[in-house]
Amino acid sequence: MARVIVDVMLKPEILDPQGQAILGACGRLGFSGVTQVRQGKRFEVEIEGEADETRLGEVRKLAETLLANPVIEDFSLRVE
Amino acid sequence: MARVIVDVMLKPEILDPQGQAILGACGRLGFSGVTQVRQGKRFEVEIEGEADETRLGEVRKLAETLLANPVIEDFSLRVE
Repeated sequence: MARVIVDVMLKPEILDPQGQAILGACGRLGFSGVTQVRQGKRFEVEIEGEADETRLGEVRKLAETLLANPVIEDFSLRVE
Repeated sequence: MARVIVDVMLKPEILDPQGQAILGACGRLGFSGVTQVRQGKRFEVEIEGEADETRLGEVRKLAETLLANPVIEDFSLRVE
């Protein structure tokens, strides 16, 4: 069994209102050193067997079709 | 300027209905090798200056108070 982490973030050119709200709250709560916040999603996907190229290709397809919206989001995979 | 990644995941003993829904969809879509999915959040926090101990302590406090709910969620920091 292997665990693949899929990180999904909005593309840099897409506005991130959640991140902006957190940044605003940082200022009000006194965390003045914070200059930017962006929020995304993190998925832990456990798969059968080894994380070989075939399996990773499947997880990549899963990420494209189910976990991320490729129009507005980028994703990256890594084996943990 | 430094970037700190904050990963927030539900504690292992907390049910994750979003992850369960994704797992169910994996089966229906033919991704049969997937055995478990858990969904969490990922924050990219940019801070002024170096990511030294003081700054990281501030980000840790930020994560505890604003980004994660320590009752049901675990979080981890890493500098990128």
